[in-house]
Amino acid sequence: MKKAREINNLKGIEYFRSALEEVTYPNQTFDVILSSLTLHYVELFDTIAQNIYKWLKPGGQFVFSVEHPVFTAEGTQDWSYDTHGEKQHWPVDNYFIEGRRNTTFLGENVVKYHRTLTTYLSCLLNQGFKLKEVVEAQPSEEMLKQFSEMKDELRRPMILIMSYEK
Amino acid sequence: MKKAREINNLKGIEYFRSALEEVTYPNQTFDVILSSLTLHYVELFDTIAQNIYKWLKPGGQFVFSVEHPVFTAEGTQDWSYDTHGEKQHWPVDNYFIEGRRNTTFLGENVVKYHRTLTTYLSCLLNQGFKLKEVVEAQPSEEMLKQFSEMKDELRRPMILIMSYEK
Repeated sequence: MKKAREINNLKGIEYFRSALEEVTYPNQTFDVILSSLTLHYVELFDTIAQNIYKWLKPGGQFVFSVEHPVFTAEGTQDWSYDTHGEKQHWPVDNYFIEGRRNTTFLGENVVKYHRTLTTYLSCLLNQGFKLKEVVEAQPSEEMLKQFSEMKDELRRPMILIMSYEK
Repeated sequence: MKKAREINNLKGIEYFRSALEEVTYPNQTFDVILSSLTLHYVELFDTIAQNIYKWLKPGGQFVFSVEHPVFTAEGTQDWSYDTHGEKQHWPVDNYFIEGRRNTTFLGENVVKYHRTLTTYLSCLLNQGFKLKEVVEAQPSEEMLKQFSEMKDELRRPMILIMSYEK
């Protein structure tokens, strides 16, 4: 498997396996950097933000999705239920206490890192990125019709998607 | 009291009393527009965003604070308590159901309007504003030492402050 620093010799699609904090690329290598539901597993967002800014060409795009701070804050990643077992509301707690959260995902213990919205935005704006668009993902009309449980996804934001330009 | 349209004749500080949606000013009148904890009482944020963009000079600043969407979503604006009356967590519900919330403030019934973070950001970015800074207000070290109840303000975001440039 090629090392990331040999990126200049890339043809087509190639895959690297590495801790994100340890990846290195030459400055101004990429037109677009895309990250899907990964960065809430990474402790040092500021480091990643710095690197991504360097790796992008001028005018380059950084588009990413993460679990929403409202979703990661409290840590259990489950609803609050009433005495009848009905979903009562979504719990938010320790919002400004950033860092490690021990959660479960598909039956496995998983460590995630909670960050405030302020941190996600500030780290990138401070690098010099320009915010282009923000979306808190919600189900479409079609999904709401097809899957009745999807209506709960209108009750709390789960996914945050942002698009930035260098 | 002068009407807003006579703004060109203003000397020093003058005060107008009017519904925000009905205020009119000439285009490119102001260097800075500041709004403190007001816009969550206004139903039509998009209209306000359009107007503010027009009223600012090129390079002008729009800085505002509102109650945070996490604070306004559920509507009762109170904690969830356990059976011993202790604060359990902050409830979020109906996050994507924007609009009217009937709340109480200092013992009075008050109508507020919940909007998602996406709406606050998108309305302004779509006008052409550039996001400069976002802060979710939290108590300082000094406040935390002086007022023990302030530690609850680390548990959920109450105030959202944003700064934009035309």
